[in-house]
Amino acid sequence: MAETVAGATVSARRSRITPERAAELYEAVLDLLREVGYDGLTMDAVATRTRSSKATLYRQWGSKPELVARALRHNKPVSLDDIDTGSLRGDLHQMVIRSDDCQMQRDAALMRGLLHAVHENPDLHEALRNLLIEPEITGLNTVLRRAVERGEVAADNPALQYAVHVLIGGFAARDLIEDRPVDGAFLASYIDAVLLPALGV
Amino acid sequence: MAETVAGATVSARRSRITPERAAELYEAVLDLLREVGYDGLTMDAVATRTRSSKATLYRQWGSKPELVARALRHNKPVSLDDIDTGSLRGDLHQMVIRSDDCQMQRDAALMRGLLHAVHENPDLHEALRNLLIEPEITGLNTVLRRAVERGEVAADNPALQYAVHVLIGGFAARDLIEDRPVDGAFLASYIDAVLLPALGV
Repeated sequence: MAETVAGATVSARRSRITPERAAELYEAVLDLLREVGYDGLTMDAVATRTRSSKATLYRQWGSKPELVARALRHNKPVSLDDIDTGSLRGDLHQMVIRSDDCQMQRDAALMRGLLHAVHENPDLHEALRNLLIEPEITGLNTVLRRAVERGEVAADNPALQYAVHVLIGGFAARDLIEDRPVDGAFLASYIDAVLLPALGV
Repeated sequence: MAETVAGATVSARRSRITPERAAELYEAVLDLLREVGYDGLTMDAVATRTRSSKATLYRQWGSKPELVARALRHNKPVSLDDIDTGSLRGDLHQMVIRSDDCQMQRDAALMRGLLHAVHENPDLHEALRNLLIEPEITGLNTVLRRAVERGEVAADNPALQYAVHVLIGGFAARDLIEDRPVDGAFLASYIDAVLLPALGV
């Protein structure tokens, strides 16, 4: 079967499930992930919890890693691309304060639970990379590129390539080191103290 | 039993195992951690692998979290306190290049495996905090304090409190984002591009 035909088939099949129903399924997947972790999550459990058939799940999403990655992506409230405040500081602050703190802490717990699974399951890593990590990095790079175009940051500033590492450090280290949950106010202060000075802003 | 007596009893008991034998036990614990993870590691398995009795293990280390934390601490080759090159850049570079890259990658895999366990097991978190995290932060703060005393960094630089978050970001994000193992050269370049400029060096 040719690529396009296969693609059309997938779209046709996908259209059988309404966006509302897909959202319900994604929520159930995230609940199960929080309850039993990635290794404990089975397509059987998702089917039972959502009163759907395993055949439907596999037809719609192909595999467990793909379903989990799409559920996580659905969970992201706003695309980074929509942020454009006119200054790098404004963009970065909006990035970290746009989702409410409870949501951010639930996300942190979820991602922490997945971190180990990612290394045991290359398919999950691949799906997360394509659906979640790459779009976030692309969004962050758009924000940074606009700052360079506005003349806020020198095009050859070596910290540009490490912005994502710095942000992950703030996100991950807060509760590991300080035993306090991450929140928007902390990340905004971290960005002001570390990332902006490193970028020469 | 009074605190001091209990403490003395523990030291007396500890002395029954030679440092060489303790090192063997710690290596076996780290091997098991890599093989089966924290949740899968049992005191029975450690006893079998090391041909010791479970009673000895409990008498010597008290609990599984304590044994694991001591094994991880034993694994750290050099104390940060021993580093004093005369410049902040020199100290930080020596910090990240002192252990060989293979060792660093094995450590990263180990810590990644523990990250989830830490959140499920408060006793493990407590033991790691006391035996591993706090001494590292204290060592890093000593390095930073000397830089302030030398006049390299302003005492009120807001990035001082976030140095550990930045470093953890470099350590953790490298293989998550770039799918490449962390190494000393990468961390040295990350320190030069981000941490030193943020500190005004």
